[in-house]
Amino acid sequence: MRVYLDNAATTAMDDRVIEAMLPFMKTYYGNPSSVHSHGREVRSAIEKARKKVAELLNASPAEIFFTSGGTEADNTAIVCGIETHGITHAITSPIEHHAVLHTLQECAKKGKIKLSILDVNEKGEIDLGQLEDLLKVNPKSFISLMHANNEIGNINDINRIGELARAYEVFFHSDTVQTMGHFVHDLKTLPVDAVVAGAHKFHGPKGSGFLYVRKDKKIHPFIYGGAQERNMRGGTENVIGIVGTAKALELAYEHMEGHRRHIEDLKKRLIDLLKENIPGVLFNGLSENLEESLYTVLNVSLPPSEENRGMLMFNLDLNGISASGGSACSSGATTGSHVLRALRHNSEREAVRFSFSRFNTLEEIDYTVDKLKELYSVTV
Amino acid sequence: MRVYLDNAATTAMDDRVIEAMLPFMKTYYGNPSSVHSHGREVRSAIEKARKKVAELLNASPAEIFFTSGGTEADNTAIVCGIETHGITHAITSPIEHHAVLHTLQECAKKGKIKLSILDVNEKGEIDLGQLEDLLKVNPKSFISLMHANNEIGNINDINRIGELARAYEVFFHSDTVQTMGHFVHDLKTLPVDAVVAGAHKFHGPKGSGFLYVRKDKKIHPFIYGGAQERNMRGGTENVIGIVGTAKALELAYEHMEGHRRHIEDLKKRLIDLLKENIPGVLFNGLSENLEESLYTVLNVSLPPSEENRGMLMFNLDLNGISASGGSACSSGATTGSHVLRALRHNSEREAVRFSFSRFNTLEEIDYTVDKLKELYSVTV
Repeated sequence: MRVYLDNAATTAMDDRVIEAMLPFMKTYYGNPSSVHSHGREVRSAIEKARKKVAELLNASPAEIFFTSGGTEADNTAIVCGIETHGITHAITSPIEHHAVLHTLQECAKKGKIKLSILDVNEKGEIDLGQLEDLLKVNPKSFISLMHANNEIGNINDINRIGELARAYEVFFHSDTVQTMGHFVHDLKTLPVDAVVAGAHKFHGPKGSGFLYVRKDKKIHPFIYGGAQERNMRGGTENVIGIVGTAKALELAYEHMEGHRRHIEDLKKRLIDLLKENIPGVLFNGLSENLEESLYTVLNVSLPPSEENRGMLMFNLDLNGISASGGSACSSGATTGSHVLRALRHNSEREAVRFSFSRFNTLEEIDYTVDKLKELYSVTV
Repeated sequence: MRVYLDNAATTAMDDRVIEAMLPFMKTYYGNPSSVHSHGREVRSAIEKARKKVAELLNASPAEIFFTSGGTEADNTAIVCGIETHGITHAITSPIEHHAVLHTLQECAKKGKIKLSILDVNEKGEIDLGQLEDLLKVNPKSFISLMHANNEIGNINDINRIGELARAYEVFFHSDTVQTMGHFVHDLKTLPVDAVVAGAHKFHGPKGSGFLYVRKDKKIHPFIYGGAQERNMRGGTENVIGIVGTAKALELAYEHMEGHRRHIEDLKKRLIDLLKENIPGVLFNGLSENLEESLYTVLNVSLPPSEENRGMLMFNLDLNGISASGGSACSSGATTGSHVLRALRHNSEREAVRFSFSRFNTLEEIDYTVDKLKELYSVTV
């Protein structure tokens, strides 16, 4: 049996997404910037995709910019948000994705901003009081706090963060890579200025995503060149990626409740079976809590075991189970997870992130627990 | 009849490229940064693609970085080349692609560099004497001069430019988007520090390309995030794009001489037939000269004609012919071409760029000339 439980790293593409992309590989090959018929038919597909994404998120098409993925979108929001709005101070947390953390650290290194990093407790929670204290003394701030954490699944209350941002009139960017396509984002009411998506996190193609920037918080381009994306991103558009991104988001919204129920069942079963079968099992962050964490992510902390020490991912892989020891987005398990480090995770214990999609089954969960039980039987 | 003569804007994908990409849409969906088997099989495809590209260009795999296309690659080379090497002055020409020109202008606007723009004559030629004079007084320079112009096809002698760059020990970046896959680049002997490619210019996918940076001229990343591309570009890789890029370049190199002969025949025939049938026809830049211009591009200057004034592209399109009035890379024919402006092209005359690929036929050339003859018959 081969079980893929690493859906927070990437998901398998939906066949209907592939079907939507194929005509733009085989038949419609024009450059969307060309004014002739070969170009126009492709331009039309891009603008339809933009309209669809905007519609689903209750945004305006003029607020949606297609990018090469979530990381480019995060870089754009941060670098250009800070530069365009003359911002001198940024606030983030130590458990942000590297696309945010490294980008902000680079801005700080270049002397563009002073960077404040919020504290997190051992559950990975931030303190909104500390955020407000920082806002009080730093009127020209940029807040970058993720919607949900990719490793431990914690969901931040971006509504409350956004209300604070509004109250202090600062720019609020949220890395929504893990929630886009899995939760409803109503951008007319959600008080955020910029959010992002990577299509491959919701059964779309890798190398494609988008950036939403609120109309009244316009930013300058990150990549300069032609007039594409209404002068906001130079470069011939990744047409198949854009078409696939919109289709994937459409499918995600169409069936969101059903998928959610199915995936929550998987997560609940995994929690229950692990508690039953692995004495001493714990859950990192808030991931055991179904209300406060992603339904797609469960981060498990396994009891110390000589046999599995540093070998657990390898042992699971040998048994056909693909999961993650930290975030797959930063290759090389060698350096470990900055998120688990921030949570002071006991290094005697192995942490494993299981992340689910609508393609997983209860049978796969049972199989996974059986194998974990075998691996941990010696120590039990 | 529908004739596509806008191959400098973009090309149709080769079926064999699509075939190479499909398994990574349907079967191999892992995240290349994941250490488990789902990830490793994809990582292996990326590294094979990198090795193939490096092999074809006589470079080292460590010098090849996959990007979202030529524009991102140009931005990376310019912004990060200048920042990393503490460069304070840049030299370019007024007929560079906007991916270069706008990026350099932005660097100048931000006060990072002083920008010198070389003169061009009415054929679009630069003067290497002027380049050397600038190098003499600006020791910390960055040269960005394209290999071949996308609108008029002029080929720059990047060997001689590179030798000058070496002599003055400055960074030399060349936008090779129009020549990659159409000419042999031997990067062991060619004295360049950075070149770029957009796969869709040689029958590969849109939204994918690469940057070559010479080993001893390392630069810092443009997009920060995960450790992808050996810490040089954050973001989950566009796997299908990367696989398609390598396959397209492989096919281009395999059959380059045959394709070149075929396309040169098309270009020669178009030149001959136009001269025969359209009195007063001229050719912009060096595009009539088969040695000094791209074999894929012919930029035609048509005699003044009331009937076609501002309507030529539209009239061609009505007849099923897709060509370009300037560069398609900058959408909206409204602003006109900065290249033709730099050449002081007579605005009474219509300019049209015909650009060819291996998929074009002699019959299509004949058809195009027939239609042009009809359109210009009134004035003849």
